[in-house]
Amino acid sequence: MHTHEAISAWLAELRASLQTRLNCLDALWPDGPQRLLSAMNYSLLGGGKRLRPLLVLLAARLSGDNDADAWPAALAIEMVHTYSLIHDDLPAMDNDDFRRGRATCHKQYDEATAVLAGDALLTGAFEVLTQLPSPVACECIRILSRSAGADGMVGGQEDDVRYAACGQQYLTDSGREPSDFLNRMHHRKTGALIRAALLMGATVGGASDSLKESLICYGNSFGLAFQITDDILDVLGTEQAMGKRVAKDAGAGKLTFVTCWGLEESRRRAKLEVEHALAALAHCDQKNPACLALQSLVSELPERTH
Amino acid sequence: MHTHEAISAWLAELRASLQTRLNCLDALWPDGPQRLLSAMNYSLLGGGKRLRPLLVLLAARLSGDNDADAWPAALAIEMVHTYSLIHDDLPAMDNDDFRRGRATCHKQYDEATAVLAGDALLTGAFEVLTQLPSPVACECIRILSRSAGADGMVGGQEDDVRYAACGQQYLTDSGREPSDFLNRMHHRKTGALIRAALLMGATVGGASDSLKESLICYGNSFGLAFQITDDILDVLGTEQAMGKRVAKDAGAGKLTFVTCWGLEESRRRAKLEVEHALAALAHCDQKNPACLALQSLVSELPERTH
Repeated sequence: MHTHEAISAWLAELRASLQTRLNCLDALWPDGPQRLLSAMNYSLLGGGKRLRPLLVLLAARLSGDNDADAWPAALAIEMVHTYSLIHDDLPAMDNDDFRRGRATCHKQYDEATAVLAGDALLTGAFEVLTQLPSPVACECIRILSRSAGADGMVGGQEDDVRYAACGQQYLTDSGREPSDFLNRMHHRKTGALIRAALLMGATVGGASDSLKESLICYGNSFGLAFQITDDILDVLGTEQAMGKRVAKDAGAGKLTFVTCWGLEESRRRAKLEVEHALAALAHCDQKNPACLALQSLVSELPERTH
Repeated sequence: MHTHEAISAWLAELRASLQTRLNCLDALWPDGPQRLLSAMNYSLLGGGKRLRPLLVLLAARLSGDNDADAWPAALAIEMVHTYSLIHDDLPAMDNDDFRRGRATCHKQYDEATAVLAGDALLTGAFEVLTQLPSPVACECIRILSRSAGADGMVGGQEDDVRYAACGQQYLTDSGREPSDFLNRMHHRKTGALIRAALLMGATVGGASDSLKESLICYGNSFGLAFQITDDILDVLGTEQAMGKRVAKDAGAGKLTFVTCWGLEESRRRAKLEVEHALAALAHCDQKNPACLALQSLVSELPERTH
């Protein structure tokens, strides 16, 4: 019934609908300075795979939501993801000039505007979540703020930039082995927002505790498969395919799964994480198109690395 | 009954209690990197007049709150204020090395950590607000996100830094007169957060619509009196009294109330705004210590400028 093509077409529809809604977001701030709103839109509408909002929508659908109540959560997570990219690209952080094949926000505008555009997107994400009914809104805001904050994404980013600045000394100070440090960093830097996407979707859809646990397991493995793949592509990819400088992370003295494990072992582990993610969905309704779409999204992750 | 001394002592108690609570905030993020939490605490605990959280607590008390339910809102607004100072001080923005007599966050730590500490404080503010009962939490999150975002504080800051960078051309592009531009900028950059403090307090305390309106009027005049005073002190103050470089704004080509109106007219207008603020409280219970404290806070603002 649900062929691979039908699932792909549905995901494309969801992405198109998301784009339309992201396009209208700036109507929320009629008094915002033009340059600020333009910088926010530049980064928000500049493409990307939209994985996190799709995870929100699919988790909600799998949990029984049929009324598209999950849209505010889907928009909010993409806003937080976009803010994190803008700030990560800043000269004081990763100092990237290109992102998704275009100039980064601070290159296209200016550094002050980029900092502020990130701040406004992060702030706006919580505003958008208040469009949900209040108990659900509150739970989603709790999930998103914890996942994006000092214990989550921002904490992981601090570890990432400090390792790049201090190298081995930072590991010694924190008393951790490289592989343990790397797992822990990405569990927060990339994983936290992916789990938040799935949990917000599950919360909006009214999922059972056991479905939430399955989705968190799926999210943990999805996050790892995603990050390992990203590290492999950083080494293998062409600048054109990646839309940004390649072999940059290794060159910047960053710890990556490839520098830690080597290429072949990284490929093997990415494949293993995909299998774990699929196994986590074993008890879900296999006829639900959202389940099939979640399977499809994670399976596609490492395909580009061969 | 409530002498000036009694009100001062009560405010000092509230400030001390606030400091104790700010001190414990990092317990919310047990997995946060040490350096990040240390940078957040450095800026959060580094002093300041704590005007915004006091406005939250006083507005709540004036609105009938006796159970100290307003604390999460008081902490949240101080977190947002602190994040805004950290980001405003960055080299790409105001490029300040000193704040409250100490090195700014990016000088004491590093620029990446300062950006991230600001991000984590902003994110954490919304987390803290979810400690309120959910309908009140949602309303406070709506108030704070709108006031701090593109239409509010961040929008005002964008106008401020762009005027500093482009001068008269920025006014010409936005089609505004200097005095109109300045009012509009501060209405958002400083005023929005002050109004948000009062409105969140009023929301927690269950204020009537008419009390909310009075508090917004008070807040508008408080914000203007505060900013005009700040601009006067920038010209008059000694570095020691201000804890930061003085005559910096005028030197940086910034538009200030003093450059716009001159010193005497600025003093006159600050005094006028204090009178407006006091008048806005005319219908409040004059025996309520919170009313007396609000009168006292706004009256003290321009006193240091003589």
